[in-house]
Amino acid sequence: MIEPAVLKGFRDSLPKEEIPKKRIIRKLEDVFSSYGFVPIDTPVLEYTEVLLGKGGGETDKQIFRFSDNGGRDVAMRFDLTVPFARFLAQHQAELGTPFKRYHINKVWRGENPQKGRYREFIQCDFDIVGPDNAESDAEILMMMNRSFSSLGIDGYTFHLSHRGMFNTFLQSIDETGHSVDILRTVDKLRKIGKDETRKLLAEITGDEGKADRILSFISADEGSFMKTLEKLEDISGGRSEASERMRAIYSILESTGIASSFVFDPSITRGLDYYTGLVYETFLDKLPSLGSVCSGGRYNDLASLYTKEKLPGVGSSIGLDRLMAGLEELRSPLLASSSSADILIVHRTGDEGLAIRYAEKIRSCGIRCDVYLLPEAKMKKIYAYAENRAIPYLLTFSDDGFTLKDLRTRDEKKAEDLDSLLKGFAID
Amino acid sequence: MIEPAVLKGFRDSLPKEEIPKKRIIRKLEDVFSSYGFVPIDTPVLEYTEVLLGKGGGETDKQIFRFSDNGGRDVAMRFDLTVPFARFLAQHQAELGTPFKRYHINKVWRGENPQKGRYREFIQCDFDIVGPDNAESDAEILMMMNRSFSSLGIDGYTFHLSHRGMFNTFLQSIDETGHSVDILRTVDKLRKIGKDETRKLLAEITGDEGKADRILSFISADEGSFMKTLEKLEDISGGRSEASERMRAIYSILESTGIASSFVFDPSITRGLDYYTGLVYETFLDKLPSLGSVCSGGRYNDLASLYTKEKLPGVGSSIGLDRLMAGLEELRSPLLASSSSADILIVHRTGDEGLAIRYAEKIRSCGIRCDVYLLPEAKMKKIYAYAENRAIPYLLTFSDDGFTLKDLRTRDEKKAEDLDSLLKGFAID
Repeated sequence: MIEPAVLKGFRDSLPKEEIPKKRIIRKLEDVFSSYGFVPIDTPVLEYTEVLLGKGGGETDKQIFRFSDNGGRDVAMRFDLTVPFARFLAQHQAELGTPFKRYHINKVWRGENPQKGRYREFIQCDFDIVGPDNAESDAEILMMMNRSFSSLGIDGYTFHLSHRGMFNTFLQSIDETGHSVDILRTVDKLRKIGKDETRKLLAEITGDEGKADRILSFISADEGSFMKTLEKLEDISGGRSEASERMRAIYSILESTGIASSFVFDPSITRGLDYYTGLVYETFLDKLPSLGSVCSGGRYNDLASLYTKEKLPGVGSSIGLDRLMAGLEELRSPLLASSSSADILIVHRTGDEGLAIRYAEKIRSCGIRCDVYLLPEAKMKKIYAYAENRAIPYLLTFSDDGFTLKDLRTRDEKKAEDLDSLLKGFAID
Repeated sequence: MIEPAVLKGFRDSLPKEEIPKKRIIRKLEDVFSSYGFVPIDTPVLEYTEVLLGKGGGETDKQIFRFSDNGGRDVAMRFDLTVPFARFLAQHQAELGTPFKRYHINKVWRGENPQKGRYREFIQCDFDIVGPDNAESDAEILMMMNRSFSSLGIDGYTFHLSHRGMFNTFLQSIDETGHSVDILRTVDKLRKIGKDETRKLLAEITGDEGKADRILSFISADEGSFMKTLEKLEDISGGRSEASERMRAIYSILESTGIASSFVFDPSITRGLDYYTGLVYETFLDKLPSLGSVCSGGRYNDLASLYTKEKLPGVGSSIGLDRLMAGLEELRSPLLASSSSADILIVHRTGDEGLAIRYAEKIRSCGIRCDVYLLPEAKMKKIYAYAENRAIPYLLTFSDDGFTLKDLRTRDEKKAEDLDSLLKGFAID
């Protein structure tokens, strides 16, 4: 006998998780499609060189890498961004720009599993490649807002900033040389706190005064998006191309009436090198400790590893597993219901044909109907089956007619024919 | 520069493939859900021992197998059946029976790529575990029929047989000792033809007379399901438990009015050892050479590698990539349309805010709307963009009102306000 177990850091998705997960993914796909975004998919396995770059990552323990039977050095994708860059370089002539795509699928990282972190998880990425303008930035932000509102999430805020404004500020204090280290340190502010951040910044710059100035930049909060933006322009020497872009983006958000979900948060930098403009993270108002559930920004040149063509773009990634963990903690109704069917039909031996015919009729009305397949079972077992699957209604029939029982209230409704019973039926 | 290429036997899915693929998967999921089937998912990576059994498959070149960073012997799943068996053994107490599940996802096999065969492909499995009765067999068959009809496929036939009837027949000619070899040979009939099959059967049984009798059994076709069934009963010594089951299944199919899509085809045996009862394959009437696009059957004991509990069931697998290849060859309308949006809005510089507001209004009517993000582009470029994405309508606006152009017919409709233009709008 072999022990039925999954690998450390991996997990099965049972119906109670998989049903709401599919529901969430469908809603997101519907939003993306309504904006004219198209789906793509890429192979799970790629050449390691394609994923990590030449010579890069020899010692990268984070990825699942191996030699295939043909001796090729291959690896499982660890995000959807790198495969997308390769995909763009390969198919750009056919795809054309602007290209708006989404990609929802699994990625793998060999990191040490902790609470809420797994070695296999789902990312949901969407990008606009081609244009570099405020309209594209705003469209991605609008689509994020529409995604979160369509999921019925109660309270979320998008924290925006701009890499260029931060760079202008670093120039003004003569610290562009340390920008990578400073960006990475600032990115940790939420985790390590102000004091630790100040200490690290002082070490990097060798100047406590500069550390304080950086801290005051990234802590700027004047109570409104525009006031904070103006304050930051002040600190870093006036308006700039970067700050004008943020003004233009905000103006579009205002014109569509959704600006209140967005704040200017100069502590947002995103650790990754490839961002060049707008950057953002998303927090659930009631669960800030969860961290960002949707992050991204603008990049100048996504596919430079594979092509000489410049491919600027703007894009986001929703961490679906983290978002679902958050929704569960918030007891979101989106996760509450995972019923396998609306009606369970129970019948006696010999009535199989009838039961199945009735079931087909019910399905043709758009109602999900499960036939209980063991006609000799005791009612206790049948109730347990319905309860386990959260099926709300039980339908029985005899020569006298039909009985529909609401298993939550125990109310019964009787009718001589199925049609009249279904007429009043509404799925909750 | 790194060459942007995918591995041999792998492929990207571009929007023109991914849009119809997602549409097909949604339709199938809707059918499965309407029958009360629930989705599950399992990890892509498993312990090799779990997938191949103890000691088994040391030399199996067909699978992607490696040592992970923790030194574990792991492999990528090569089907959805083995992980399901492991899943059942692990979670059966929580799931309960009858358990009706579906699972649509990728699997990997390292076989040599040929036309239409890839190393990464999607399977779509659905099973009922628990009951062993005609009603369950029939429900799976009905759901297959509903799946194919909901996909709008023009002409398909389900070929049914029963392993037990074949075994009874082999008993009657005293050839149960060679049953595995005979089953595998018969399974190849469609590929290798009658003469070659007869030759192989004569080699296995050492008796040309027996080879002829086997051939006449598997070639029986009396023009109707019931007549063929009766003929086979005749050949193998009368009614049996197996043939009674087939009668009961057919009676249910008849009572729901779908029996005409099913034929009794005794040449169907399925090569795999674990089938014990009903077995079936599915062929597209206009494309028999494609092979079976949906196969499966009844098994006695799926999870015996991992648990002592008997878990009988019946289940099917749709080869989604093969089915899609067939639909493409048949020029199915299901694959024809992969438009990224219904309407493309074009605007001039300065009108971004307006364009985006109108787009939001259009989306709120359930119409997919793409905003062209480069206001300075020439119309020629915009038309090429719309054509490449199969977007049928172009919307422009000015102070005078709105113009909606059908890009296929070049018809234009004008209106002073957007509402009246949208009122008559129907998505094809």
